[in-house]
Amino acid sequence: MPQTATITEQELDQLCINTIRTLSMDAVQKANSGHPGTPMGMAGLAYTLWTKHLRFNPANPQWANRDRFVLSMGHASMLLYSMLHLTGYDLTLDDLKNFRQWESRTPGHPEFHHTPGVEVTTGPLGQGFANGVGMAIAEQFLGAQFNRPGHTIVDHYVYAFCSDGDLMEGVTSEAASIAGHLKLGKLIYFYDANQITIDGHTSITFTEDVGKRFEAYGWHVQHVDGMDIAQANAAIERAKSEPERPSLIIAPTHIGYPSPNKQDTSAAHGSPLGEDEVRLTKEKMGWPPDAHFLIPDEVLAHMRHCRERGGQLEADWKAKFADYRGKFAKEAAQFEAQIAGELPDGWEAALPVFKPGDGPIATRKTGRKVLNVFAQKIPNLIGGSADLAESNLTVVEGSPSFSAEDRSGRNIHFGIREHAMGSIGNGMAAHGGVIPFGSTFLIFSDYQRPAIRLAALSGHRNIFVFTHDSVGLGEDGPTHQPIEHLSSLRAMPNVVVLRPADANETAWTWRFALGHSGPSVIALTRQNLPILDQTVYGSAAGVMKGAYVLSDAKNTDPRAIIMATGSEVSVALDAQRTLASANIPVRVVSMPSWELFEQQDQSYRDAVLPPTITARVSVEAAATLGWERWVGTRGHAIGIDRFGASAPGGTVMQKLGITVDNVVAQVKELV
Amino acid sequence: MPQTATITEQELDQLCINTIRTLSMDAVQKANSGHPGTPMGMAGLAYTLWTKHLRFNPANPQWANRDRFVLSMGHASMLLYSMLHLTGYDLTLDDLKNFRQWESRTPGHPEFHHTPGVEVTTGPLGQGFANGVGMAIAEQFLGAQFNRPGHTIVDHYVYAFCSDGDLMEGVTSEAASIAGHLKLGKLIYFYDANQITIDGHTSITFTEDVGKRFEAYGWHVQHVDGMDIAQANAAIERAKSEPERPSLIIAPTHIGYPSPNKQDTSAAHGSPLGEDEVRLTKEKMGWPPDAHFLIPDEVLAHMRHCRERGGQLEADWKAKFADYRGKFAKEAAQFEAQIAGELPDGWEAALPVFKPGDGPIATRKTGRKVLNVFAQKIPNLIGGSADLAESNLTVVEGSPSFSAEDRSGRNIHFGIREHAMGSIGNGMAAHGGVIPFGSTFLIFSDYQRPAIRLAALSGHRNIFVFTHDSVGLGEDGPTHQPIEHLSSLRAMPNVVVLRPADANETAWTWRFALGHSGPSVIALTRQNLPILDQTVYGSAAGVMKGAYVLSDAKNTDPRAIIMATGSEVSVALDAQRTLASANIPVRVVSMPSWELFEQQDQSYRDAVLPPTITARVSVEAAATLGWERWVGTRGHAIGIDRFGASAPGGTVMQKLGITVDNVVAQVKELV
Repeated sequence: MPQTATITEQELDQLCINTIRTLSMDAVQKANSGHPGTPMGMAGLAYTLWTKHLRFNPANPQWANRDRFVLSMGHASMLLYSMLHLTGYDLTLDDLKNFRQWESRTPGHPEFHHTPGVEVTTGPLGQGFANGVGMAIAEQFLGAQFNRPGHTIVDHYVYAFCSDGDLMEGVTSEAASIAGHLKLGKLIYFYDANQITIDGHTSITFTEDVGKRFEAYGWHVQHVDGMDIAQANAAIERAKSEPERPSLIIAPTHIGYPSPNKQDTSAAHGSPLGEDEVRLTKEKMGWPPDAHFLIPDEVLAHMRHCRERGGQLEADWKAKFADYRGKFAKEAAQFEAQIAGELPDGWEAALPVFKPGDGPIATRKTGRKVLNVFAQKIPNLIGGSADLAESNLTVVEGSPSFSAEDRSGRNIHFGIREHAMGSIGNGMAAHGGVIPFGSTFLIFSDYQRPAIRLAALSGHRNIFVFTHDSVGLGEDGPTHQPIEHLSSLRAMPNVVVLRPADANETAWTWRFALGHSGPSVIALTRQNLPILDQTVYGSAAGVMKGAYVLSDAKNTDPRAIIMATGSEVSVALDAQRTLASANIPVRVVSMPSWELFEQQDQSYRDAVLPPTITARVSVEAAATLGWERWVGTRGHAIGIDRFGASAPGGTVMQKLGITVDNVVAQVKELV
Repeated sequence: MPQTATITEQELDQLCINTIRTLSMDAVQKANSGHPGTPMGMAGLAYTLWTKHLRFNPANPQWANRDRFVLSMGHASMLLYSMLHLTGYDLTLDDLKNFRQWESRTPGHPEFHHTPGVEVTTGPLGQGFANGVGMAIAEQFLGAQFNRPGHTIVDHYVYAFCSDGDLMEGVTSEAASIAGHLKLGKLIYFYDANQITIDGHTSITFTEDVGKRFEAYGWHVQHVDGMDIAQANAAIERAKSEPERPSLIIAPTHIGYPSPNKQDTSAAHGSPLGEDEVRLTKEKMGWPPDAHFLIPDEVLAHMRHCRERGGQLEADWKAKFADYRGKFAKEAAQFEAQIAGELPDGWEAALPVFKPGDGPIATRKTGRKVLNVFAQKIPNLIGGSADLAESNLTVVEGSPSFSAEDRSGRNIHFGIREHAMGSIGNGMAAHGGVIPFGSTFLIFSDYQRPAIRLAALSGHRNIFVFTHDSVGLGEDGPTHQPIEHLSSLRAMPNVVVLRPADANETAWTWRFALGHSGPSVIALTRQNLPILDQTVYGSAAGVMKGAYVLSDAKNTDPRAIIMATGSEVSVALDAQRTLASANIPVRVVSMPSWELFEQQDQSYRDAVLPPTITARVSVEAAATLGWERWVGTRGHAIGIDRFGASAPGGTVMQKLGITVDNVVAQVKELV
């Protein structure tokens, strides 16, 4: 290594870049697991971006107006961790040494809420790409909401690093298309076209002209040598000067550079280089071959300068914001509340109450009313549909569409791009300041599963609205009729699934979702349902507890329990009436959310489902898998364990056994 | 309508096209549900393609060398049903009148195996596009396998109609990229860029240059007026003359043409036109306004000519095939067997048997051995991985890669395109003649769910191989560790999920999957597992029954049952030993497949899980949802109802309670 006294700027740059490389190699080697090659190849790009362009303050990773950086190829996590440590985030060298160990702050893939400076959880390819698009939408929306002439308080870029794998994934294609359409010019993405994937060279499967494809999406495309930091620097400058087109900088690097034996091979991708190769590589870069986790003092000094710079950047912004507050006190307070994720005082009071005369009405239709009541109170509730707005009924009334021309719109036209819709919502939630929602048919939750899972893992308040939630949708048939989707979503940790039984439960469902810190999945009907009289039945506020006694046996103890969700709750009530006239008193439990019910204490749960009553029947027009948890060994779950069929919804329900008669018969058999 | 005596060719064409339009309008109107606009707009394209190019025989929808036609926008099903009826398939006018009714042969979206002439189930957008790519791969592979100089017995095109929605979906992007890479020149796709979707004009969300995008993928792109059948005809001719590039013919039509009030609006997309508008439209086209389901005699005569033509086409092919059989008897017999979906005689005998000394070994590793043993016997077993071949270990050894240069290869490099891999596999299975498989990590089954579901709904023998099937994969962390996936897949109808416990169960798992008529999902470990001694434990042939007694209590009745799947079976056996030494005799049941076990008769199930033994513990390193079905109210399910964590696999297993100690403790608590 050159001596400090004589070091040139170029030499210092190189020393920093090699430090990033060696930290990544060493951490992967120590963990005996991980992906060294991409951090080594992209070290120069990361160094250039972070030290010369990215506006961030390591001392305050939450600074609202920071630039966002997304590492879409999450497997290159050591690149990010190295940068976070070197630039002075609260991430120690010991943390790096603990890479991929139990309870470390440096897990195998970056995790949101887990490591300071990690903007979003990545790993499943393509997600980070789409998350960044969501961040850029949030930035533009907040800018429209809060910026005033001469007072630009929201104004930042979204940078991402993407890999060959990211560019192959379909969700990327969807997100890139909408980003181009929306002219999200503040997106600046590097595509490391290193041409090496796990299975070898991309020539075996990926020979399209990516640059041309992105031009077709309306992106500004540049080609530079990813190993040349001057070129990279100039490309970023040009990208910043493009106000309307998102930028893709195609910057091939050499994976595993400068490993003598593994550079440019898939062997550098997903495995440690090996002790010997690490030594050889260090020797080749003029590094002490036996030093591990070495950070030369001048490197640390130079890179920790980012703290100073970042502190100044934030301080400058704070001064601007103070000025803004002086002129726009209300807006400033609102901005801070939104960034903190807070809802306006008294928003819950807007909860609408529906009376039987307002129905019968589909829960998707009351969903629209409820959404709009709350949207009036909550100005940062913004979302849209994957081209089913008129079916999902999730339009924020009185607000324009979010478009290239109007960034104030709260209605996003996601197009027929369900997966990107989910991932963009995650990016919006990760950005902060907005509460996103997205809607489609429940069947198409399948297209969104990777996004729903990442919302759950990350704890994003991203609200997934799914209408047409059963075979009750009718004629569209089995390709459109969800069966296994409720069970499948309930199986996913950290997701709250809610299937309201009527208009009032729908209101409470939205109330829960808006106040909840993680993702909610809301399942709504296409078909009309009666509105349950709140003066007769248990209060729909019971939604907040997941399950509640909707209608108990009259003047006697129940001999059986019928539990149901959503559209089948009224079937259960009808069965209760029929059974009562046969002198079989039963209790009906509405169970809109298993997850919320499971969070209640045992005494509440036993009060709703007394252990002594083992004659239990559940009815839900969906797969029965899991219902044994509630009906028990002696009970019976009525559901649909086959695909649906094309016919009018009522016919399908009847043919598949979702009928009052069937419920009555099952209860009679049990009591 | 013109009189027959004076009718010109153009007038007859127009009459046929208007018949397609009116049948579609009438059927949707009668059902009071459906999508009239696209059939009306695309009627001319369909007429041109089917009567002038598509090689098919309505009398034998299974003719092996027919051209394939895929209606990717499945909602336009009445277009397809109209064509099937008019050209003389076994689909009656009454069937059309029964559109979207219970048990009709004309469901809302086309369903494979349900209606003669329907090549694939479509509806969820993008799927048909990708299915066609799989069909083209199958055609090329079979051609390489069977064609001989001067004897071309496999040689057909794959045509598809696609919509704006199809082109927005990510899976289409993935499939288009690989199709261009593989130079699948026999793909000829029409893109009806009618610019109308449910939410309005595509200008609100879809403004990319689709033609340029497809050129970037390596496709041959043409732009024609979709309402001009001469242009369409010429475009098909040009597309056929392109041997190397798949063709996209961008042919905008007018949705709902010629409805006076609804043409070119989203009102024509997904709802009946209404009685009045149907009348007005018929009047405009010179049709008797009060006639319903009217098929002029000259139209029927003209279009039924397709039967004659098709019969001749097939007869010509049969003559060629007879000639082929004369020279290549063995190949001819093999071809027929493959097309019939039959496996070679005695293929099961290849089943490998593993001994304890062959292990410990990961089931993904034995999976590779098993795959290759069977692949040697079954020459049409062809598949690949989504860029994880070296991790999934699903390479067919001794066979080249399937590529533009070599169509004989049995290893497909799908790239990092999991979704397209699943959908392409479905298309291969639908084509027939091949048995496809595709592999990735279990976590990424999320990316494939829409394809898995369509495989299940369609009954495709598409084998989904998922490795890294639990938190036992270790360091990659929660973004890569499946939790809810087994439950989620078990909830899906018609899917058989198999999670073998060791090498021998892996062999039986593959044996089942190859012989099964629908999709199988195979979950394999990353980490090593002991091989269970077949001379000591229950035979791994028990896989075929879903669950079996692996190890019973010694010389006494068991007091408890431990049931487990996959890697946790050896945990269960260790627990059994520990409990035995504490004088608690227990039975261990290996339960590789719930679905297969559920198919057994009650006596077998009771023999494996005697109802009298209610002390039951299940152990599976996954979400517990659903296990109550087997452990019952008194039992206990050990699993992981949270996300995993990044650390060595053994550590994660231990920290999350998948341990012998935990199983032992739970059993002790129950007995």
